[in-house]
Amino acid sequence: MVKARKFVLANLFKGEPKVDDFRIEEEELPPLLDGQILCETEYISVDPYQRGFTHRYKVGATMIGSQVFWLRVARIVESRSPQHPAGWHVVGTWGWRDRTVVDPTPAPDDILPLMLVPDYRDLPMSLAVGVLGMPGASAYFGLLNICHPKPGEVVVGSGAAGAVGSIVGQIARIKGCKVIGIAGSDQKVKCLKEELGFHHAFNCKTANMDKALKEAAPDGVDVYFDNVGGEQSSAVIANMRQGGRISVCGCISVYNETKVAMAPVVQMHMVGKELVLEGFMVIRWLDQWDKAFLEMAQWIKKGKLKYREAVAEGFENTPKAFIGMLRGENLGKAAVKV
Amino acid sequence: MVKARKFVLANLFKGEPKVDDFRIEEEELPPLLDGQILCETEYISVDPYQRGFTHRYKVGATMIGSQVFWLRVARIVESRSPQHPAGWHVVGTWGWRDRTVVDPTPAPDDILPLMLVPDYRDLPMSLAVGVLGMPGASAYFGLLNICHPKPGEVVVGSGAAGAVGSIVGQIARIKGCKVIGIAGSDQKVKCLKEELGFHHAFNCKTANMDKALKEAAPDGVDVYFDNVGGEQSSAVIANMRQGGRISVCGCISVYNETKVAMAPVVQMHMVGKELVLEGFMVIRWLDQWDKAFLEMAQWIKKGKLKYREAVAEGFENTPKAFIGMLRGENLGKAAVKV
Repeated sequence: MVKARKFVLANLFKGEPKVDDFRIEEEELPPLLDGQILCETEYISVDPYQRGFTHRYKVGATMIGSQVFWLRVARIVESRSPQHPAGWHVVGTWGWRDRTVVDPTPAPDDILPLMLVPDYRDLPMSLAVGVLGMPGASAYFGLLNICHPKPGEVVVGSGAAGAVGSIVGQIARIKGCKVIGIAGSDQKVKCLKEELGFHHAFNCKTANMDKALKEAAPDGVDVYFDNVGGEQSSAVIANMRQGGRISVCGCISVYNETKVAMAPVVQMHMVGKELVLEGFMVIRWLDQWDKAFLEMAQWIKKGKLKYREAVAEGFENTPKAFIGMLRGENLGKAAVKV
Repeated sequence: MVKARKFVLANLFKGEPKVDDFRIEEEELPPLLDGQILCETEYISVDPYQRGFTHRYKVGATMIGSQVFWLRVARIVESRSPQHPAGWHVVGTWGWRDRTVVDPTPAPDDILPLMLVPDYRDLPMSLAVGVLGMPGASAYFGLLNICHPKPGEVVVGSGAAGAVGSIVGQIARIKGCKVIGIAGSDQKVKCLKEELGFHHAFNCKTANMDKALKEAAPDGVDVYFDNVGGEQSSAVIANMRQGGRISVCGCISVYNETKVAMAPVVQMHMVGKELVLEGFMVIRWLDQWDKAFLEMAQWIKKGKLKYREAVAEGFENTPKAFIGMLRGENLGKAAVKV
């Protein structure tokens, strides 16, 4: 009998979660039926949007299942499905688990289908939950398909040192834009400028946002890729140029808030500059993810696109990694090596 | 020698303007040169966006000129331009003046070109600054070209009893939508429901916005046409449905603010529901205004589209009408009969 561990919700927390708001439970996995595969988790992805999903949970709820968007990279250790041979890697949405019996047939409530991970040769498999996974697809499509950045345009990204933001800025640079990153620590700012090729970057916790934006972009901002929302975003929107485009990928500034989060009103800027702001969920472009991953893998191999990862070790440290990521402690993609 | 009166800025006011922040000056008009026309104002349009323009003024500045967007309906009393015969009506952007010598050749800094008003037969000429003018065009194009409302969809409009909002709701109704209006008095709410054919309406000053929206649109809002911005808009955005569209025409809630206006953060709704929000200036569709005015004139004649006007009498009452409009005292289009 194969045993699996999973995290369940121990408390209905408000505000910032604590480590003991999550609890490990063990379960015995049933023998494989025809068509099923046994997957063993290598990496668990911890992402900001997961915080939002906890609002709909009850105490003791197994944080598992395709209705939850918690991506994992899993290795197939045993397979009774000819399309999914043992030894391959898949990405699935089964939550914070170390082992899972999966029926690869899509279920009606699947948010994401099971995805086979192609052989990226010498690239690490953790990238399948990073730059070559959902965060990378969010950066690629959210920037290119919503903002249509043109060479010479000024692109600002918030959460710029995170899993999505760090890729957004580099894609914008590859497309010939002037790139400004907003991040939450001096170390992140240094990395953006010295390692990831951002033209400007500043620390939103110490800089005067309005002044920093006016210095870095004296003629205004054309494109804003937003992972943060709230006050930061109001400051960027106030500094945009006629016809600017805003892509909203996330709103990490509010996920741990217990009160109604307030920010300066932006509608007068939206009118005066005729701005367009669009929120997206990246599954919109699911049928094109492969193409984006292949292009980004090429960029990585050519040295044009760099990735940073903040990988914690050990399944039991998943809540800690999650909480740290919500605090902005990670530089690059936050994940857990099981 | 023909004399003209014009309003100039007497004080650099902050917050709500007062009547004595404006001062009348007289000037003598020069004799007409070839190609020029002498226009005599019949109606002055007072509109919310004009408040924004005062920020760039200095004391004593003549509030005149094409860089200012203050539309007037003017009758041509004398013409040395064969294309503009005496007796016709034009709409121009010469500010709060009772007489103007106009060179009809477009100047580089014109915001709007001089427009000849077609013969709408028995419709009053004041409509050329109302439903058959810039406010009507804003309603028509801002709703149809940005939000693409479909029959059966739920459309919410803020500032719903104003010059633009009252037309937005009726066009949405004509297009087969369920229409909800948000207005600032019980009298306005009554008018929207009983006279203008809105399906629902409520008073934003007394209703619980969230509760009222959930009652009127239990399955959520598809389209939001926003004239107000700020807290009201955050409440509507929080109640939108997947794939909703938001057109931002104005932001009257902040124009008189002296502090930074704050409102609940909306980015998490923009992401979760994949909403699109776009601000616009209606001159974007200037080449199509004629077509919209003809269609709306037909709707008026067939009784499908009703207009309400709040017309003050007397040139000297222009500041009072302007201030009252900013307070929301008008029901329908605010204008001054000179």
